[in-house]
Amino acid sequence: MGLKIEQLRYEADGLSMLGHLAWDDALDQPRPAVLVFPEAFGLGEHAKERAERLATEFGFVALACDLHGNGETIESLDEVMPLITPLRTSSDKVRDRVCRPLEVLAVRPEVDAGRMAAIGFCFGGTMSYELALAGADIKAAIGFHSGLEVTSPQDSGQIKGKIMALIGADDPGITSEQRAAFETMLRTGGVDWQMHLYGGVVHSFTSPEADLRGMPDFLRYDAVADDRSWKHMALLLNEVFQ
Amino acid sequence: MGLKIEQLRYEADGLSMLGHLAWDDALDQPRPAVLVFPEAFGLGEHAKERAERLATEFGFVALACDLHGNGETIESLDEVMPLITPLRTSSDKVRDRVCRPLEVLAVRPEVDAGRMAAIGFCFGGTMSYELALAGADIKAAIGFHSGLEVTSPQDSGQIKGKIMALIGADDPGITSEQRAAFETMLRTGGVDWQMHLYGGVVHSFTSPEADLRGMPDFLRYDAVADDRSWKHMALLLNEVFQ
Repeated sequence: MGLKIEQLRYEADGLSMLGHLAWDDALDQPRPAVLVFPEAFGLGEHAKERAERLATEFGFVALACDLHGNGETIESLDEVMPLITPLRTSSDKVRDRVCRPLEVLAVRPEVDAGRMAAIGFCFGGTMSYELALAGADIKAAIGFHSGLEVTSPQDSGQIKGKIMALIGADDPGITSEQRAAFETMLRTGGVDWQMHLYGGVVHSFTSPEADLRGMPDFLRYDAVADDRSWKHMALLLNEVFQ
Repeated sequence: MGLKIEQLRYEADGLSMLGHLAWDDALDQPRPAVLVFPEAFGLGEHAKERAERLATEFGFVALACDLHGNGETIESLDEVMPLITPLRTSSDKVRDRVCRPLEVLAVRPEVDAGRMAAIGFCFGGTMSYELALAGADIKAAIGFHSGLEVTSPQDSGQIKGKIMALIGADDPGITSEQRAAFETMLRTGGVDWQMHLYGGVVHSFTSPEADLRGMPDFLRYDAVADDRSWKHMALLLNEVFQ
């Protein structure tokens, strides 16, 4: 097998995005495809590496999506928050950011457009749910340590795919009320959903870089939860791509 | 491979129990072993079949445990409840029912006593947690559509293994308060735990016989959740038996 990488330009929400496309060119049939939405800091190594793993471990085509335009990443949480807030409040804006890369991915010759899904990390997990809420033709939307608040919970009846939320049970950013509201939203929409709670685990558990921020009660890498959640994701992707 | 079955007599809580032991005699090394606690109705085909699957699919030794003595099963929920109530209130009684079969299993020549775990269904799931709370040397306790109320939550610091609760998110028998109390118990004990919630799923989702009771809002087989939860169990057993 041979891992191929391409920097993929696309427009979304008025920005020029630079995505990171990964696929195995030893496969010659159109195959399942997965969008990977990065953490709020933008498209860094973490999401790119996960896209590459989706290609090498499972043979999927994976597009790690840009968030802030031109592939920029932002170090400071203080700088990131004002950029994210509009995406947490405007369905139109966030949906443009998530639907455009899906369109780009769907027309790639390597891709079976009938078998697409989205995953995401932190705010990127929320973006995967936003894509589902937009009524997109995806088989699954999976969020790792994702925020559970979306712009338009009343649209849950539009969700076509299956939802999986992989959550640190001790994530200080996710209250029990938010979990309950997320459940209610999905129940109301008649959605096939799962929530996996990992005890003793906080935010950013898939991201080794989280430890560099020195906020271990809030952000902390957890190798066990990282491994478990990746396998739980894999089970759902293999289920929906059968 | 060759599946072997043995009816295994043991004493527990003053009763003469008749367990159903399953193993693959094509394997000649001591291997991981799993207790299987049945639903409240007693040791029926469901738990026996799961024990056999643990042997055939994974090569484990599995003991489906008796609940009411002499391998009896009880059809009526009205008759079952008075038999279960003492086990829901007395740690001594329930611990004897769960610890004795573990002792019996541990000394079998086929078994690696350093790699044992317990699973259970419905009240049997609760029994697997009770075994962990008793401080037993098990690597994992896994409950399928289990009750989440235990006799001695204050003993959670004694738990040595990992806990996994596989729960129908719409199980009318499990309130959000019970889920929260279960989390708190495990958090207090510093336990490695997971809870998987399956949306649109009620009680008894692994049991096709549940549908015969004609109470679909409370008890209902769910083939998808059955398959998913079995795979989630398998991931944890393979993790702890490495």
